[in-house]
Amino acid sequence: MTSSPALPETTLSQTVLPATMRTSVLLHQQQLTIEDRAVPTPDSDEVLVKVAAVGVCGSDVHYYREGRIGDFVVDSPLVLGHELSGTIVAVGADIDAARIGERVAVEPQRPCRSCRECRAGRYNLCSKMEFYATPPIDGAFCGYVTSQTEFAHRIPDSVSFEAGALLEPLSVAIASIRKAQIVPGSSVLIAGAGPIGIITAQTARAFGAGEIIVSDLVPAKRERALKFGATRVIDPVATDPATLGLDVNAFIDASGSARAVDSGIRSVRPAGTVVLVGLGNPEMTLPVAHIQNLELTVTGIFRYVDTWPTAIHLVASGQVDLDALVTGRFDLDHVAEALDSDRDENSLKSIVYPN
Amino acid sequence: MTSSPALPETTLSQTVLPATMRTSVLLHQQQLTIEDRAVPTPDSDEVLVKVAAVGVCGSDVHYYREGRIGDFVVDSPLVLGHELSGTIVAVGADIDAARIGERVAVEPQRPCRSCRECRAGRYNLCSKMEFYATPPIDGAFCGYVTSQTEFAHRIPDSVSFEAGALLEPLSVAIASIRKAQIVPGSSVLIAGAGPIGIITAQTARAFGAGEIIVSDLVPAKRERALKFGATRVIDPVATDPATLGLDVNAFIDASGSARAVDSGIRSVRPAGTVVLVGLGNPEMTLPVAHIQNLELTVTGIFRYVDTWPTAIHLVASGQVDLDALVTGRFDLDHVAEALDSDRDENSLKSIVYPN
Amino acid sequence: MTSSPALPETTLSQTVLPATMRTSVLLHQQQLTIEDRAVPTPDSDEVLVKVAAVGVCGSDVHYYREGRIGDFVVDSPLVLGHELSGTIVAVGADIDAARIGERVAVEPQRPCRSCRECRAGRYNLCSKMEFYATPPIDGAFCGYVTSQTEFAHRIPDSVSFEAGALLEPLSVAIASIRKAQIVPGSSVLIAGAGPIGIITAQTARAFGAGEIIVSDLVPAKRERALKFGATRVIDPVATDPATLGLDVNAFIDASGSARAVDSGIRSVRPAGTVVLVGLGNPEMTLPVAHIQNLELTVTGIFRYVDTWPTAIHLVASGQVDLDALVTGRFDLDHVAEALDSDRDENSLKSIVYPN
Amino acid sequence: MTSSPALPETTLSQTVLPATMRTSVLLHQQQLTIEDRAVPTPDSDEVLVKVAAVGVCGSDVHYYREGRIGDFVVDSPLVLGHELSGTIVAVGADIDAARIGERVAVEPQRPCRSCRECRAGRYNLCSKMEFYATPPIDGAFCGYVTSQTEFAHRIPDSVSFEAGALLEPLSVAIASIRKAQIVPGSSVLIAGAGPIGIITAQTARAFGAGEIIVSDLVPAKRERALKFGATRVIDPVATDPATLGLDVNAFIDASGSARAVDSGIRSVRPAGTVVLVGLGNPEMTLPVAHIQNLELTVTGIFRYVDTWPTAIHLVASGQVDLDALVTGRFDLDHVAEALDSDRDENSLKSIVYPN
Repeated sequence: MTSSPALPETTLSQTVLPATMRTSVLLHQQQLTIEDRAVPTPDSDEVLVKVAAVGVCGSDVHYYREGRIGDFVVDSPLVLGHELSGTIVAVGADIDAARIGERVAVEPQRPCRSCRECRAGRYNLCSKMEFYATPPIDGAFCGYVTSQTEFAHRIPDSVSFEAGALLEPLSVAIASIRKAQIVPGSSVLIAGAGPIGIITAQTARAFGAGEIIVSDLVPAKRERALKFGATRVIDPVATDPATLGLDVNAFIDASGSARAVDSGIRSVRPAGTVVLVGLGNPEMTLPVAHIQNLELTVTGIFRYVDTWPTAIHLVASGQVDLDALVTGRFDLDHVAEALDSDRDENSLKSIVYPN
Repeated sequence: MTSSPALPETTLSQTVLPATMRTSVLLHQQQLTIEDRAVPTPDSDEVLVKVAAVGVCGSDVHYYREGRIGDFVVDSPLVLGHELSGTIVAVGADIDAARIGERVAVEPQRPCRSCRECRAGRYNLCSKMEFYATPPIDGAFCGYVTSQTEFAHRIPDSVSFEAGALLEPLSVAIASIRKAQIVPGSSVLIAGAGPIGIITAQTARAFGAGEIIVSDLVPAKRERALKFGATRVIDPVATDPATLGLDVNAFIDASGSARAVDSGIRSVRPAGTVVLVGLGNPEMTLPVAHIQNLELTVTGIFRYVDTWPTAIHLVASGQVDLDALVTGRFDLDHVAEALDSDRDENSLKSIVYPN
Repeated sequence: MTSSPALPETTLSQTVLPATMRTSVLLHQQQLTIEDRAVPTPDSDEVLVKVAAVGVCGSDVHYYREGRIGDFVVDSPLVLGHELSGTIVAVGADIDAARIGERVAVEPQRPCRSCRECRAGRYNLCSKMEFYATPPIDGAFCGYVTSQTEFAHRIPDSVSFEAGALLEPLSVAIASIRKAQIVPGSSVLIAGAGPIGIITAQTARAFGAGEIIVSDLVPAKRERALKFGATRVIDPVATDPATLGLDVNAFIDASGSARAVDSGIRSVRPAGTVVLVGLGNPEMTLPVAHIQNLELTVTGIFRYVDTWPTAIHLVASGQVDLDALVTGRFDLDHVAEALDSDRDENSLKSIVYPN
Repeated sequence: MTSSPALPETTLSQTVLPATMRTSVLLHQQQLTIEDRAVPTPDSDEVLVKVAAVGVCGSDVHYYREGRIGDFVVDSPLVLGHELSGTIVAVGADIDAARIGERVAVEPQRPCRSCRECRAGRYNLCSKMEFYATPPIDGAFCGYVTSQTEFAHRIPDSVSFEAGALLEPLSVAIASIRKAQIVPGSSVLIAGAGPIGIITAQTARAFGAGEIIVSDLVPAKRERALKFGATRVIDPVATDPATLGLDVNAFIDASGSARAVDSGIRSVRPAGTVVLVGLGNPEMTLPVAHIQNLELTVTGIFRYVDTWPTAIHLVASGQVDLDALVTGRFDLDHVAEALDSDRDENSLKSIVYPN
């Protein structure tokens, strides 16, 4: 990097940038508005990304409808959206200006980099984490965002901006599949065929799982699962999976249903693994004696660590298809519609285009 | 091994053995009797052990009082006792006769050695396991037992027969501490200061734990914990451990109490471990969102794998004191009293001497 | 095993079996003969397999040409061949007769099942291992062999007998890829494009490797590698891989060349893995300071543990193609020709049909 | 933290600090001088430490005598010394001023915190690492040094400044013992009874190793090893350890001798571990076939990750005695003598007091 003393790069790049950007702001529960806000300036270790596409996540919907998720409460205006891609348009003082112009997918985390968890390589558990679209940190339903440079991951031309945005839920799936220790030939039961369940099924297939069993209450969702990697689907109302002798290596819950979790745990073989991904009741009754007698490992995931490179590989190599998941596209004036699109059973994933 | 063609070793050794042995038999719930039974003959891969000392375990007490533990039901006469030491007095055809005379502690498992779990090194999860004193397999409240040769572990002279018997609960503790990933400097919360809790505290110390926090409802038990490795004790009625910011690496439940389990899980640091050892309600309400948000690992133990060598080392080197745990000694005619000795709060561990 | 003198199951099944079988015997270095030998009788825990196809392995060639491999010396007549498939035609007393008729691939190991290594799940390191076609244990260039029942792995109809035999070298590859910790997106350098290198490249692809770089001196072999999974090939004479900044996650040596090993080690990224599979000089000069400075892990493989289920899955699902590797077929009278077929550069894998 | 706008804390604290400090500078090979240098100013995320004690390490001696270690060359003036303790006397803008006055041991690493290795929790392998006393980064033979706040580890009053300095070689030992996977009951062979070998033996004991076998050519060093944890010592000239059937779980080389490394590798049990710590010839001839046949894992260590908390625990709890290792004390004017003190066979560890 060479920098001119008269015109530091950041400024130079920003000369072509607008001063303000349109921003969708959640004022409080159910109340969205559009504001003009200043385009942010990247810190010395950051890049500025012009947002291309932003996926709508269930957590965005929760904040919109209930104004909270557990202890996280929207008590001041909040910008939603944390699944995003875009183009680097400016860089901080310490970053090589050659990055300007890169198409990137943004990992929406901003860890402190120096606490006990960060030093241990578990930056997702950083106690000082600033995570996009989680109160009080703003997200990406706006024209521009900043990102620590290492969290703006270059995507190849073969990966669309929409797929780039959906690398975020794919990262959730990768984190789950890693915890579930899926390897070629593994068998896995996945409860729930919503967006996360569907992407997890695809990811399980890409990791080599031989049996990918998906349960869901809704026939259309079961049908969809079969198109995206499931080798078998189960209607849990008709048949309790625990009665089928599935003997799977791992169970991944992407439903949040206490009943599905109990039944899934009882479907795992000795020394197998249970990964709880779905957000349901914060407390659930679990079959503890069963966990003990089979020495099962039960864990959950909280965001992800080092998943974007893998996610980019899976999409670029065609092993995971994210483009096919998009069922709706919205501009910044229709964020409310985007957030409500899950009311249509055929909807799977909505994308907001802020610019 | 050299064997006389006229008199095979087993027979030779057994010439000095009695034909029958006194045996304490649980006919059904609460009803014990003494029978004379034939001394068993070791298979070709087995040794015959003259029983020296047998510890009384909570599971023995359960079978005695309730006639069952979960799905395991005493529906035919059963010999209790699975914590045992003794002396090899005969060997099967394929075993070196030099083993005769060895003082041994018996690992009371008889896995099939060839199933999927056995081949994977998880013989404790063998689906064909024959485990001492678990219906319908007889235990060791009798004069002689057989054992697969590799499960009769030689103990040095410095380890008493009583300590030899108590290598079994020590093995439970070692299995727990391994799962809890205790290393030098770790912090651990242990709920319950009964025999398993006390031995687990000692084992945690031997594995280098820096903070060993034990909670128990009973003041005398808390006092005792301080003598056996605890660096701090908590009265969970006076203070919920979860409110203390313990931030421990691991929580081990040796209480079976749902309240202790919930509180213990909330005391663990991010990415920490929870090991459920105590047998309580087969179903418990767990703080699932907490497990997810901190990416905790929750697991249990079912018996043990490859713990006797470690256990023998810990006792022989003086790092774990098992002899000090013995508070009562009984002969075969007083097994009922031995089983009921836990009704005295000052009782910790009772030993039965069958011979 | 005790068997009824009248008509034990084994005998029953064997009523349709011939008393003798043709057997190819290596008398000593370079000298093969055909003998009529008794068809073996399975022990109580064994099955009898009528051999269908047997792959020729480099180790067979070594015993044939040099009469030894390291400390293993052919000092009495030996039957070669340890890559085999066939059909179960009889079972021992403890085995379900329903297995008769199963098409199986045989894992050519016979561990003791009870030593320290076996109990730990590392039966490949069993100190009492009897391994097919390794002095003094006979192999499968004959009509029938016995196998412990758990090592006769059922293969589906979609897997040919030739592929069934080649599950053995595929198992070597799987063991290597596991040790190399290949996961989706990994990069790997493989030295050597002989049968093991080629199968390892296929296996790396099945485990999700994104970059599979194969080096070989021979242009035709490099060409072949590109057909079987390699994403890039290197001529190590023209270009030392270590100078290319490959920064791979893992290096697998399937060449046995000291130069390739040194160069491969220098191609691995920090904290990466090196797996030595090829058999070369028993001592090699390694770049120790490099291993230290990058904290590389260097290891090797010795046979395999629990690989057949994965291998069967990879072949049955079409992810690994073993049939395409076969370049020669021979009957028992032409075992010498089969062993010498590697002298043709276009030969990749020869199969012997004993029946 | 609140800070006065007029006088930022750093400045405030530094008002009592001198402007310059005496500094021992290595001009080139064998040539040391004393300079007055400016006391450094901590960055916003740093603390300023007044140096108390600095241990002399073999690497310091190498730079002094040969002017280089491998590719690291002293081609401009360098301050040596990287084993250090002291007191925080000033803090950067983002650091709580309450840290001023803390007695600390400094982990002499300054990783970038954001590269691939840092994000993975392997900051020791950071490609942009600035490590004390490694060209061109200055070390601690001077009055004051800066440290990223998280690498200035508070030590309790019970840990002396000398022990605080020696937490650095103890960290090397901890990193080695962790890689060697020493647990209670493990057996380990350590080659070399110099400072690292001696501290490693103590650490092995603290991690529970049951057999700690130390080999060294020098009788006095073998004697010393017995005082610091060794359970057995070997004269490798009289007896090649590989002939003794040691069957150890792990071998740690702290000698750098090719012969010791070869012999040590041949002493390890199947599936065991070899950790190369000593710096010897950058290339060594290793018994590769042996590594393969036993599936040994061979690795090395490069500095350390997250060892200070463990090291502090081991010293504060009395399990490792570092004070007893100090055999010489020197002021800044006698750094050359300190560096040459290893010429006395009775010398073990020298400490320099810069202030």
